[in-house]
Amino acid sequence: MRQSILFTKTKKEVEKNEVSQNARLLLRGGYINKEMAGVYSFLPLGLRVIRKIENVIREEMKNSLGAQEIVMPALHPLSNYKKTGREKIDVLFHTKLNSGGDLVLGQSHEEIVVPLFKKFVSSYKDLPCGIFQIQTKFRNELRAKSGILRGREFLMKDLYSFHENENSLHEYYERVKEVYLRIYKRLGIGEKTYITLASGGTFSKYSHEFQTITNSGEDDIYLCKDCKIAINKEIIETTKRCPKCKKDISDLEEKKAIEVGNIFPLYTRFSKPFGLTYKDKEGKENLVVMGCYGIGISRVMGAVVEVLSDERGIVWPKNIAPFSVHLLSLNADKEAEKLYNLFLQEGIDILFDDREKRPGEKLIESDLLGIPLRIVVSGKTLEKDSVEIKKREKEEEEFVKINEVIKYVQKNI
Amino acid sequence: MRQSILFTKTKKEVEKNEVSQNARLLLRGGYINKEMAGVYSFLPLGLRVIRKIENVIREEMKNSLGAQEIVMPALHPLSNYKKTGREKIDVLFHTKLNSGGDLVLGQSHEEIVVPLFKKFVSSYKDLPCGIFQIQTKFRNELRAKSGILRGREFLMKDLYSFHENENSLHEYYERVKEVYLRIYKRLGIGEKTYITLASGGTFSKYSHEFQTITNSGEDDIYLCKDCKIAINKEIIETTKRCPKCKKDISDLEEKKAIEVGNIFPLYTRFSKPFGLTYKDKEGKENLVVMGCYGIGISRVMGAVVEVLSDERGIVWPKNIAPFSVHLLSLNADKEAEKLYNLFLQEGIDILFDDREKRPGEKLIESDLLGIPLRIVVSGKTLEKDSVEIKKREKEEEEFVKINEVIKYVQKNI
Repeated sequence: MRQSILFTKTKKEVEKNEVSQNARLLLRGGYINKEMAGVYSFLPLGLRVIRKIENVIREEMKNSLGAQEIVMPALHPLSNYKKTGREKIDVLFHTKLNSGGDLVLGQSHEEIVVPLFKKFVSSYKDLPCGIFQIQTKFRNELRAKSGILRGREFLMKDLYSFHENENSLHEYYERVKEVYLRIYKRLGIGEKTYITLASGGTFSKYSHEFQTITNSGEDDIYLCKDCKIAINKEIIETTKRCPKCKKDISDLEEKKAIEVGNIFPLYTRFSKPFGLTYKDKEGKENLVVMGCYGIGISRVMGAVVEVLSDERGIVWPKNIAPFSVHLLSLNADKEAEKLYNLFLQEGIDILFDDREKRPGEKLIESDLLGIPLRIVVSGKTLEKDSVEIKKREKEEEEFVKINEVIKYVQKNI
Repeated sequence: MRQSILFTKTKKEVEKNEVSQNARLLLRGGYINKEMAGVYSFLPLGLRVIRKIENVIREEMKNSLGAQEIVMPALHPLSNYKKTGREKIDVLFHTKLNSGGDLVLGQSHEEIVVPLFKKFVSSYKDLPCGIFQIQTKFRNELRAKSGILRGREFLMKDLYSFHENENSLHEYYERVKEVYLRIYKRLGIGEKTYITLASGGTFSKYSHEFQTITNSGEDDIYLCKDCKIAINKEIIETTKRCPKCKKDISDLEEKKAIEVGNIFPLYTRFSKPFGLTYKDKEGKENLVVMGCYGIGISRVMGAVVEVLSDERGIVWPKNIAPFSVHLLSLNADKEAEKLYNLFLQEGIDILFDDREKRPGEKLIESDLLGIPLRIVVSGKTLEKDSVEIKKREKEEEEFVKINEVIKYVQKNI
């Protein structure tokens, strides 16, 4: 894509009331636009990142878990929440039908997916089953100061699993843990992301969070290096030790972290109120046992920015960068154009800075945008029949001969 | 995909209060689930259709119009609607922030896209510009009895164009007309879809609808065969003739039709209240001139079902069918499995009915689902080293030798 056509522009500053690093950098880069606190538009570059995160998650849901994708609505009848006793939770947005009827905006989809699945399940042969969606959620947060980390409207992947019994749920639950860890690895935050023991709420002893360590994190977690897990604050305050190896709190490492996903064994918490049952081999009706598994997609995008940015801007991991290559023409438009067309022919994801701007500005903006490979074409590089290539996360540049650029790039993206 | 794994099942009947043909067939096929009147979930097969429609439209927006994709939120501050005087329109859903503040759910996005674009436009050099999104809209309809044709929550593509002057708008507007006609052609309803003159509301003499002719249509339109356009009822009641060639109403053909898109010249209707201006070559500030262009994606899916189904079920056009091929094993699982794997290797989009069911049921369900090519493997076909292939829209079947199946299919999808 030509940057001269892109309608967004980078900014040197953002409003002072924007305190979070993720929002500041994403706003400055023109990745997002703030419509109100906690509500953002995703602009062309930002949407490209979102789509790439979605695709990694979708692939893992389908290929690794065999889950089936659907899309459920945001408008939910309040009556369903009365059945589950969740009609009073404070993050619900309420609205009304002109024709009469109380609605809420979905902050999660148990109240929809359970009655939906009930229409299709009858026998143990229909189980286990995993159903997921990538869809917009609404949460009426009192405060929304964390950029896209805690939105009032945000994009989420939610997976629901349905089972004959707890054994089947536990087996699936363990598989999801593995798949989640692989997802965070592919998203570029694998090394800093820990499975974290959290409270299970009213229906289970534990649930699990996935927490990515970063100094700007809102959550406190306690790393147990032996068990390679973390424990969240709520649990540690009760247990004062690692629930797994019993090591004392003083031997655990306290860290700041951002929650990038959570998974819950729901057991029969939601199948009971809706009468979600199946017939077992003996023809007896049993309640379906459930689990649910969330990843906030826009939240992950924000977390990546918090975790991986530096003082010059964003540092996108390869798999979710808006483009693989940022080609900059520094007063060498003719040669840069040729190269741009070559990249397009090879099907390489490229942003081409073909604007009339000072070289210094272009370089600064490129660092802010954070595309993994920066390729500069200038009089100086052309003297050597070369371009200058710099990886965003590295300090040093490299000269590469023009006729070897494509090969170099294909090896490095 | 294996049908034995698909969690949805077809149904012989749906509730009697479901009156529209599109909802009845899509519900019976397990394409959608009704959550309440006008609010549907899209199940695995239905979501595949939605994604294919989206992709056709997205391609045309990007490649033919050079428009840039973004996603704007559903939560809008009511204050923006007070600026445009649209705060009282009756299809708005209202809600409130816990922290204080009145919100509405987006039924359209002029109130968001104009202030957004204002942050990036400054000069005539930034114009013209086209920005689109594929996103969920909310309309608080008093009645919602048309299945996914008129949803309270529905998926829409909305494009907004920004121009220096009316000439630029008109030129773009004419290009969009051509692109829209190509989109409907690719979606399989091109021959039955007419550009239709409609009222421009308070800000323009005319706008244009795209109407697809079908007996179950809710709208009345008047075809002028000479001009190859249609005129909607509102216009014809005032003019009593074709506004283009002046032919009398009695010489026009009255038809029932479904609106599948509409486009409006907005001029400065929305740029004025938000002060959306640009500097021209002389450095003078001018209001940006705008157009907007909608296609209801879920509505198009419903319209295709209304227009193209027959007494046995849906007849999907090639480009938007959930799968290209429906492979049925009628007690010939071993050979069918082989063939299924062959199709997968070739990257052909295939649904494989590998379930234990009676042949008659499988054939009836296949017609209901409406996948373009049905391939039957049975004892009878294997005797001839063949499969039986039937196009959904044709009556006759064809025997094709097993070793020629892939070639046949690649030629016919």
